[in-house]
Amino acid sequence: MENSLGKLFTITSFGESHGRCVGIIIDGCPAGLAVTEDDIQKDLDKRRPGAGIASTRRAEEDRVDVLSGIIDGTTTGAPICLVIWNKDIDSREYEKIRFLLRPGQADYTAFVKYGGFNDFRGGGRFSGRITASFVMAGAIARKLINRIGIEVVAHTIQIGGIKAEPKELDRIRENLEKNPLKCADLKAAAEMVKAIEKVRKEGDSLGGIIEGIALNVPVGLGEPVFDTLDGELAKAILTIPAVKGVEFGAGFSAAAKKGSENNDPFTIKGGKIVTTTNNSGGILGGISNGMPIVVRAAIKPTPSVEKNQPTVNIKDMESASLSVKGRHDACIVPRAVVVVESMMAVTICDLAMRAGIISRVIK
Amino acid sequence: MENSLGKLFTITSFGESHGRCVGIIIDGCPAGLAVTEDDIQKDLDKRRPGAGIASTRRAEEDRVDVLSGIIDGTTTGAPICLVIWNKDIDSREYEKIRFLLRPGQADYTAFVKYGGFNDFRGGGRFSGRITASFVMAGAIARKLINRIGIEVVAHTIQIGGIKAEPKELDRIRENLEKNPLKCADLKAAAEMVKAIEKVRKEGDSLGGIIEGIALNVPVGLGEPVFDTLDGELAKAILTIPAVKGVEFGAGFSAAAKKGSENNDPFTIKGGKIVTTTNNSGGILGGISNGMPIVVRAAIKPTPSVEKNQPTVNIKDMESASLSVKGRHDACIVPRAVVVVESMMAVTICDLAMRAGIISRVIK
Amino acid sequence: MENSLGKLFTITSFGESHGRCVGIIIDGCPAGLAVTEDDIQKDLDKRRPGAGIASTRRAEEDRVDVLSGIIDGTTTGAPICLVIWNKDIDSREYEKIRFLLRPGQADYTAFVKYGGFNDFRGGGRFSGRITASFVMAGAIARKLINRIGIEVVAHTIQIGGIKAEPKELDRIRENLEKNPLKCADLKAAAEMVKAIEKVRKEGDSLGGIIEGIALNVPVGLGEPVFDTLDGELAKAILTIPAVKGVEFGAGFSAAAKKGSENNDPFTIKGGKIVTTTNNSGGILGGISNGMPIVVRAAIKPTPSVEKNQPTVNIKDMESASLSVKGRHDACIVPRAVVVVESMMAVTICDLAMRAGIISRVIK
Amino acid sequence: MENSLGKLFTITSFGESHGRCVGIIIDGCPAGLAVTEDDIQKDLDKRRPGAGIASTRRAEEDRVDVLSGIIDGTTTGAPICLVIWNKDIDSREYEKIRFLLRPGQADYTAFVKYGGFNDFRGGGRFSGRITASFVMAGAIARKLINRIGIEVVAHTIQIGGIKAEPKELDRIRENLEKNPLKCADLKAAAEMVKAIEKVRKEGDSLGGIIEGIALNVPVGLGEPVFDTLDGELAKAILTIPAVKGVEFGAGFSAAAKKGSENNDPFTIKGGKIVTTTNNSGGILGGISNGMPIVVRAAIKPTPSVEKNQPTVNIKDMESASLSVKGRHDACIVPRAVVVVESMMAVTICDLAMRAGIISRVIK
Repeated sequence: MENSLGKLFTITSFGESHGRCVGIIIDGCPAGLAVTEDDIQKDLDKRRPGAGIASTRRAEEDRVDVLSGIIDGTTTGAPICLVIWNKDIDSREYEKIRFLLRPGQADYTAFVKYGGFNDFRGGGRFSGRITASFVMAGAIARKLINRIGIEVVAHTIQIGGIKAEPKELDRIRENLEKNPLKCADLKAAAEMVKAIEKVRKEGDSLGGIIEGIALNVPVGLGEPVFDTLDGELAKAILTIPAVKGVEFGAGFSAAAKKGSENNDPFTIKGGKIVTTTNNSGGILGGISNGMPIVVRAAIKPTPSVEKNQPTVNIKDMESASLSVKGRHDACIVPRAVVVVESMMAVTICDLAMRAGIISRVIK
Repeated sequence: MENSLGKLFTITSFGESHGRCVGIIIDGCPAGLAVTEDDIQKDLDKRRPGAGIASTRRAEEDRVDVLSGIIDGTTTGAPICLVIWNKDIDSREYEKIRFLLRPGQADYTAFVKYGGFNDFRGGGRFSGRITASFVMAGAIARKLINRIGIEVVAHTIQIGGIKAEPKELDRIRENLEKNPLKCADLKAAAEMVKAIEKVRKEGDSLGGIIEGIALNVPVGLGEPVFDTLDGELAKAILTIPAVKGVEFGAGFSAAAKKGSENNDPFTIKGGKIVTTTNNSGGILGGISNGMPIVVRAAIKPTPSVEKNQPTVNIKDMESASLSVKGRHDACIVPRAVVVVESMMAVTICDLAMRAGIISRVIK
Repeated sequence: MENSLGKLFTITSFGESHGRCVGIIIDGCPAGLAVTEDDIQKDLDKRRPGAGIASTRRAEEDRVDVLSGIIDGTTTGAPICLVIWNKDIDSREYEKIRFLLRPGQADYTAFVKYGGFNDFRGGGRFSGRITASFVMAGAIARKLINRIGIEVVAHTIQIGGIKAEPKELDRIRENLEKNPLKCADLKAAAEMVKAIEKVRKEGDSLGGIIEGIALNVPVGLGEPVFDTLDGELAKAILTIPAVKGVEFGAGFSAAAKKGSENNDPFTIKGGKIVTTTNNSGGILGGISNGMPIVVRAAIKPTPSVEKNQPTVNIKDMESASLSVKGRHDACIVPRAVVVVESMMAVTICDLAMRAGIISRVIK
Repeated sequence: MENSLGKLFTITSFGESHGRCVGIIIDGCPAGLAVTEDDIQKDLDKRRPGAGIASTRRAEEDRVDVLSGIIDGTTTGAPICLVIWNKDIDSREYEKIRFLLRPGQADYTAFVKYGGFNDFRGGGRFSGRITASFVMAGAIARKLINRIGIEVVAHTIQIGGIKAEPKELDRIRENLEKNPLKCADLKAAAEMVKAIEKVRKEGDSLGGIIEGIALNVPVGLGEPVFDTLDGELAKAILTIPAVKGVEFGAGFSAAAKKGSENNDPFTIKGGKIVTTTNNSGGILGGISNGMPIVVRAAIKPTPSVEKNQPTVNIKDMESASLSVKGRHDACIVPRAVVVVESMMAVTICDLAMRAGIISRVIK
C-alpha cells in the first residue's frame, strides 16, 4: 500500500522514469464527473520545461492516455488508470554511473533497501518524472473540488536567495502565467532568471520555496486527531522529491511571535464567521476554518549538478568522483509548482470526501 | 480510522481532556517485549509541568494504567490499552465561555465539524492533554527501537525570538536535563526563562522550535513513493497541537543554497558508506540513509492567553471579547519536547516493522 | 491494524478473557447520535447464558462502562471506548492445563504465533468472551442503521442435526424471544433443548447454524471489486470464534441448481424494482439489491468438552490426554445469535457510511 | 481503496470487460523475485475456455503485458503493473439490452450505485473477465509462496447435482489436468460433461463447488481478531463473481457433529505437532495450524442464459423479458478453479508477509 495515498479518493502510482510508462490509478472518483483528456493534459503541460531558461532541456512531450474508468468523457465510478508512455529515453549515461552514488539522490538508499534490484535508470521510481503521475491525479481531483467551489493555486515565492514580494491574490493569478518561473513578483522573477542562468553556467543548481493556496475550502476538512488537514497535506507534499520542509500560515515565523499577535481574532463578515488575520493558514485543530489554506514547501537545489562531487562507488566500495551529465534542470522549482497544486488538490479532495462533502455520484 | 496512526505498529487514541480518561491502544507490538509501567511513567513524567517557570500551574499527576496486552511485564502480542484517569478536573470555566470561540483554538472548527456535539470542556479531543496518550505509545515504541540500537532525542532550540547555539550531541544529552526548558544551550535557556516569565506577566505566551534527532537508524526505513520517512514523520508531528511547520536537515535554508553546497558527499568510514555533511537530515528519496534523522518542528505560541481578544459568540452570532482564564502554560514548548520524541519513536517503529527490521516476536 | 475492522465506521477490539477487561473502540461514529448505556446493555444481555439449559453455567454479568465519546447520552464524534470489567475470574484451571493443547482451540496456533507469550488464561484473546466487545460495537451500529430504517435480526436454524422449519419473518421475530435457543420453530426448539441436554450429560457439545437477515437495506451497499458486501460480511462473521462457513441466499444449494432456476427475476412492485425470489440473498455483484440480505453461518460444536481427548503437551513435546473442566457451554449457538447480528450491523453500517448514506453528523 | 486488497502484498484491480484493458497493480512484492511473462501466462492460460465443452465459445487469447516493476525477469521492489489488452470485442449485443436488467447479474445494483454511469458493456467491472487480473496477481503471489514451500491447488468437486468422490492429494494433482472440468474424479467428470452439454442445449447453465487446498502453510498465518486467515480467504474468494458461499474444513457439516467428533486431536509426528484429522481445515483461532488449508466455494450457475426470463426495463420502468445471447459459458466452474487458486495465493502471500515469513528483499 506504500504506493497508494488517500482513503476515499485513493491514488496508486506506478511506472519508472526509463521504463515503459509512468502511470496512476485513481480509485474512488465519483461516477458522472465530466473529464476530458484535455483537462488532464492542460495540467501536465504546466509541468513541461518552461519556454525560458528555468528548465530542463529535455524535450518531453508527456501525453496522457486513458486506460480505464472514463467513457465518453465521463467517469464511470470504476478505477481510472492514466498513463504516459515514455519516449525519448536514453539510459546510457545511467548505465555508466550505475554504481556511483549521486549525492543528494536516492541511489544509495534505494540500492540498500531493494538489494540493488531497483531500477536505477533515470532514477527509476525516485525520478522527478514520477510526479507527472501525481499531476494527472491532481487534474481529476481539481475537477472534483472545483465543482464545490474550491480553487488551488501555487506560485514561486523564492529561488535561491531571491525572495518575491507578497502580492494580492488577484495579482498572483494574473502574474503567474506571465513568466516561466510562476512567480507573482515580476521584478523578482527577472532576477531569478538571471540567478538560474548563472548557476547553470557554473554547472550548479538552485532551490526555492513554493507557496500553495486553497480558496473557498469549506469548514470541516481534516480528521483529527491523526488525519489532520495539515498532516495529510504535509505528507502529500513531502512525497514530491526535493521538498525538505513544509509550513502552514505563519509557519516557522510563528515560533517568534507572542500568542496575542499570532492568534487570528474571529469576527463576523457577511453573516459568516471569519478571522481578521490568517496566521493559522486556514487550519485550526487540524481542521479547515474556511479561510484560505496557505502552505509553503522548501525545495532543495537540484542534486544532479555537473560540478564534480566526491562520492563512492558502491560496487567497489571505493571513493570516486562524479559529474552528473545529461538533461537536468538547474532549478526545478517552476516545474514543481503544478505538482504542489496537484498534491494539494488530491489531499483536499480525499478529505472533502471523508467529510461527506463530495458525493459518490455526480448528478 | 482517523484516530489511528501507523500500518503495522498502529496506535489508536481515545479520551478527552475533561472526560473519564485519556487513552491509547497499541496494536501490532510484538509479543515478548519487556515493558514495565515505570518505562511508560518515566516518559509521561517528562511531559509534566517543569519545576521552573516554564510551565502550567495545574498539578497534573498522570499515572499510566495498563488495561490489556501486558502480563507480568511482558507484551503478549495482543493490543495494549493504556489509560490515564482524569482527576483534578474543573470544567466550570469552560462552561462559562462555551460559545465564545477561543482564537487560535479548535473551538470553531470542531463546533462546525461535529455539529456542536463535540466535547468542548478543556478543549476535549483538541486539548494538548491528548498528547499524553501519544507519549504512552511512544514509550512502547522507544523500547522496541532501542532494542535495535535506535535512540531518539529532542530538545528546545528556540523560544520566542531567542535561539540556542548549536551544540554537539553529547552536550545536548547532558544539558537537556539541566534546565526546565530542555535546551542544550544553558545561556540561551536562562534568557528563555526570563522571556517566558515576562510574557506570563503580560498575560501572553510564546512559541518556539523543537529539534528531534534519531540516531543509529538503519538504512532503508521509509516506503516511497507515498509513505516516505519524512512524510510520515511530518504527518505524525503535525498531529501535535500548535505545530505549524516541519523541516528536515537543512530544511527551509536549503532553498537558498546551491546544489553543490547542499548535496552531502558520500564517503567511506569504518567500512561503511556515510555522508560528510547531513543537509539531507538523514533522508534521501524518502528513505533513511544511516545518518542521524534531523527534524525541526515550529510551535506556535499557546493560544490560550489572558490578554483580551476580540472574538465571536457562535450561539448569538455576535462579536464579543474574551480573556482565557485558567491554568495555561505561557509556553508549552518544553512539555512538547517529549511528545516530539514520542511521535518520532512511533513513526520510526512502524516503518522499521514495515521494512522487516523488527520481528513479530521478541526472543 | 489487525484488531481493527471497517474503514469509516472502524471498531478496534482489545482486552482478554481473564485480564482486566474486554473493550472496544468505535471510531467514525457520527456526532449527535443518541445512545444510552441501556441501548448497549440490552444487546449485551442477549449474549448472556440463557435461562434454560442451552448455556454456560458461569454467572457472567457483563456491564458496559463508557470511557469516552459519549456525553449526556449523545455521541460527540470522538472515538467511543466501551469496556466490560472482568469479574468472577478463576484462572486456576487454565494454569493447570497451560501446556496441554486443547483440541479445536487456538492454544497451539497462538502459542507458536506469539512465541508462548500470549495470554492463555481462559483462551485470552481467542475466547468467545471477546465477542462481548463486538456486541457493544454492534449496539452502536444498530442505532445508526435503524435510523435509516435498516433492521437486523438473526435466529437459530439448526442445532446438531435438528433443523428448524423455515418461518415467515413476522413469526421469526415473534418466536425468537419465546425460547432460549432463539429458534423460530418452537417444535424444533424443544427438540434442540433435549439434544443439548443429552450431549451435556455425555460431556460433549453441539454446533449449529445461525441465519442473519437484514431488512430495508438500500440498494448500493458494497464496494466492488474487493470490498463487496458479501465479502465484508463473511470476513466479519468469520471473526466470531467457531464459525466455519458462511453462505448467502441459496448459498451452497445454488451449486446444484440451473441458472434459470437460481436467477431471481426482476419485477416492479409499488413503483420499485424488486426480485420475485431471493436466491441471491439480497446481493448482486457484491452490492445490495434492496431485497433482504440473508446470510447463514455454520457454528462448529464447542471444542471445550469434558470427554477425554488425546492431545500433546507442548512444553514436554509428549502425548497427553485432556478433559476440559470448567464452565463451558454445551452449545454456544444461542449466545452467538446476537453476535452474528452485531457483526452484520457493524459491517452494514460501515458500508452505508462508505456509500454516503449515513452522514457524519446526526441532526 | 475499494479496488485494492491486501495490506503488505496489495493488489489493485482496474479495467473493464469491453474497455481498453484489464489490469492489476501488485504493490509490496519483494525486490529480487525472478518472474517471467511465461510464469504469469501459464496461469492465465488455465483460465481459458477448456478444449472441451465446458466453456465459453469466445476465442479469448489473454496475453499478459508487463508495464512496470519487472526488469530483465526480476522484480525491482516497485509496483508491478500487468495488463491484458482487450481484443475481439463486440459490444453491440450489450447496447441492445442496455436497460434490460439481466437477472442474477450486477446490472441493476451497478446502475443504481453509479447513477447509470457505469460501463455496462460486457458487464464492465462486474464481468468474470476481471478475474483475469486476479490470476495475474496470483501468479506473482504463487512464485513468492512457492519459495517458502507453500503450494496451492484447487479442483472441481461438484457440478450441478453431480458430486466427485473424494480423492487423495496425489490423485487430485494427477487427474486435474486430464479433463477440462479440473475434476479429480474422472468418472464424475464424464457425467459432468454430459450434464453441461445438456443444459447448454436447453439454453440454461450449471454451477458447482470448487475446493482449494494450500499445503505446507507454516503455523502462524492470520492476524486475529479481525484479520483472520479464514476471514481474509473468504473475503478474497467472495470477490470472484458467482461465489455464494465459503466453508473451511468440515464447514457446514460441522454444525451437525459433536465436539468430540469434530475436534482434531493433536499428536506428534516426526517431531512436529500435527492433528490426526483436519476438520478445522488447517485453521484454529483464525491462524494456520500447519495442516492443509481446505476451503470450498459454492459457485452459482452462470446467470447469463438464453432461456427467456422475466425482467424489467429500467429506463422505461416496465416489465420485459430477456434472452441473453452471446458467448457465455454454460458452466464457469472449471475456469474459476485457477481464480480460486489465485485468490488463495494472494491472501496467503499477504498474510505470510504480515507474519514476517516472507522478507522484503529476495536474496
